[in-house]
Amino acid sequence: MHSFKELLEKFHVHFEMSLFPATPQTLYSPANYFLSIGGKRIRPVVCLMGNELFDAIIDDSYKVAVAIELFHNFTLIHDDIMDAAPLRRGMETVHTKYSLNTALLSGDVMLIRCYDYLNAIQPALLPHILHIFNKTAREVCEGQQLDMDFERRNDVTLTEYIEMITLKTSVLLAASLEMGAVLGGASERNCKHLYEFGRNLGIAFQIQDDYLDAFGDPEKFGKDVGGDIKNNKKTFLLLHALEVASPQTRKELLRLMQENPADKVEKVLAIFRECNVESWAKALKEKYFNAALQHLEDIAVVSSRKKQLLEVAGFLIQRDY
Amino acid sequence: MHSFKELLEKFHVHFEMSLFPATPQTLYSPANYFLSIGGKRIRPVVCLMGNELFDAIIDDSYKVAVAIELFHNFTLIHDDIMDAAPLRRGMETVHTKYSLNTALLSGDVMLIRCYDYLNAIQPALLPHILHIFNKTAREVCEGQQLDMDFERRNDVTLTEYIEMITLKTSVLLAASLEMGAVLGGASERNCKHLYEFGRNLGIAFQIQDDYLDAFGDPEKFGKDVGGDIKNNKKTFLLLHALEVASPQTRKELLRLMQENPADKVEKVLAIFRECNVESWAKALKEKYFNAALQHLEDIAVVSSRKKQLLEVAGFLIQRDY
Repeated sequence: MHSFKELLEKFHVHFEMSLFPATPQTLYSPANYFLSIGGKRIRPVVCLMGNELFDAIIDDSYKVAVAIELFHNFTLIHDDIMDAAPLRRGMETVHTKYSLNTALLSGDVMLIRCYDYLNAIQPALLPHILHIFNKTAREVCEGQQLDMDFERRNDVTLTEYIEMITLKTSVLLAASLEMGAVLGGASERNCKHLYEFGRNLGIAFQIQDDYLDAFGDPEKFGKDVGGDIKNNKKTFLLLHALEVASPQTRKELLRLMQENPADKVEKVLAIFRECNVESWAKALKEKYFNAALQHLEDIAVVSSRKKQLLEVAGFLIQRDY
Repeated sequence: MHSFKELLEKFHVHFEMSLFPATPQTLYSPANYFLSIGGKRIRPVVCLMGNELFDAIIDDSYKVAVAIELFHNFTLIHDDIMDAAPLRRGMETVHTKYSLNTALLSGDVMLIRCYDYLNAIQPALLPHILHIFNKTAREVCEGQQLDMDFERRNDVTLTEYIEMITLKTSVLLAASLEMGAVLGGASERNCKHLYEFGRNLGIAFQIQDDYLDAFGDPEKFGKDVGGDIKNNKKTFLLLHALEVASPQTRKELLRLMQENPADKVEKVLAIFRECNVESWAKALKEKYFNAALQHLEDIAVVSSRKKQLLEVAGFLIQRDY
C-alpha cells in the first residue's frame, strides 16, 4: 500500500511525459502550458488508490489516471472561458494567454486525447471503464450548465444546489475511485460503495469550501475571504440563509445582493450568523463526511487496506476550526 | 446493395430518435436544435456503404454512423464560434441563437455523446474503431488550427494547404469509409484502399469547391460567387496564382488583397485567368479524383459491389463545367 505522496510521484512519471504530438505547435503548446501550471492531482491519485484498495496497481490504472487528469484539465480550460476568468492558480488562463479560439480548440483536443489513453487499456476492461468515464463526463457538463443557469435565477433550492454540485464536482472524484476499483477487480457492490464514498466526500468538501470562503481564516485559507458573498454566488450558506431567514431578514439579504453596498460582506456575514448558518453548515458537512466514511467502512476488504483513503479523506476535510 | 438515398433513410431512423437526455434542457435543446437544421449526412451514409461494400450492414454500423454525424456537428458548432459565423445553412448558429457559453458546452457534450454510441458496439471491434475515430478527431482539430494559423500568414505553400485541407475535411470522410469497412470485416489492405479513396475524393471535392467559388455559375452553385476572393481566403486557386505569377502580377495580386478595391473580384479573376488557374485547378481535381477511383478499383471485391460508391463519387465531383 502506498501513501498519497508516493502515488503522486508514480503518477507524475506517466503524466510528465509529452502527452501530445509536437505539431501543430500552435494547438498543442497551449495544452502543455496549461498542464504545466500544476494542480493537486487528487483525482488520478485516488484512482490509483481505488485500484490498490483491492489489488496491486496494474499498468492500465496509470492510463486511466492520465485520462482522468486530462479530462479535469479540459473542463478547467473551457470553464475558464465560460467564467471569463483571467487567472488560474495565479497563472494566466489559456484564453487570456493565447486566445478564445485557441483555448476552445486546445480543450477539445485534450478531451479527445483522454480517449486515446482509455483505449490503451486491456480490451476486456474497456467497455466498463468507457461507460463510467462517458457517463461522468456528461454529468460534469450538465453540472456546469446548471451552475450557469443558477446564476440567472433567484429561486434556487438547496436540493437543486446539491444536485448541481454533485454533478459539477463530486461525480468525477467518485468515478475516479470507482474506475480504480474496477481495474483492481472489485465486486460491483464494492465499486458502488467506493463511488458513494467519493460522492459524499466531494459534497462535504464543497460545503467546507463554501464555509471557508465566508468564515475561514484568510491566512490559512489562502483566498480572498468573502469572495462568494461579493459575487452573489449561490453557496450552501446563502441558500440556507434565504430558506430560514425571517421575511424581513430575507428582504434585507436580497437588497444587499442587489445594491452591493461597501459593507456588504460584513452585513451578509451578520445575517448568516443570525440564521445560525455556521453551525448548520458544520453539521451538514459532518453528515456527508460521515456518510462517506460509512460507505468506506462497508467495503468488504480488511480495514488495514483502507488506511490511505481514510488519510486522503481527512486531508480533504479539515476539522481544525 | 442500397443506394445513397435508401441508406440515408435507414440512417435517419437511428438519427432522428432523441440522442440526448431530456434535462438539463438548457444544455440539450441547443444540441437538438443544431441537429434539426439538417445536413447532407454524407459521412454516416458512406460509413454504411463502407460496411456494405464487403458484407451485409450490421447494427454496429448504425451506432458508428451516429457517432460520426454527431462528431461532425460538434466540429461545426465549435468552428462557428471560432469563425464568428452568424448563420449555418441559412439558420442561426448555436452561439448566435443562444450564447457562446451554451454553444461551447453543447458542443462538448455532443463530442462526449459520440463515445457513448461507439461504446455500444460489440467489444471485439471497439478498440480498432476507437483508434480510427480518435486519430481522426485529433487530426480534424489539427486541421482547424492550421486553417486559423494560415489566416495570419502570407507565405502558405500549396503543399501546406493540401495538408491542412486533408486534416480539416478529407480524413473524416476517409475514416467514415474505413470504419464501415472494418465493421464489414474487410482486410487491412482493403480498408486502407477505401481510406485512400475517401481522402483523395475529399481533396478533389475541396478543389472543386474553391473552383466553383471563383468560376462557378451562381445559379447552380447556390452561393455568393467570389466570396473567397473578397475574404482573401487562401484557396487552391490563390495559392497557385501566387506561386506561378510573374513578380509584377504577384505584387498586383497582393495589393488587391490588401487594399480591397470595389472591383477586386473582377481583377483577381482576371489574374487567375492570366495564370491559367482554371485549367490547372481542373487538372489537379482530376488528378485527385482519378487517384480516388484507382484506390476503389484496387479493392478486392467484385466491381458490381462498388457501384454505389462510384455513384457517390460522381455525385460529389461534378463534371459538367
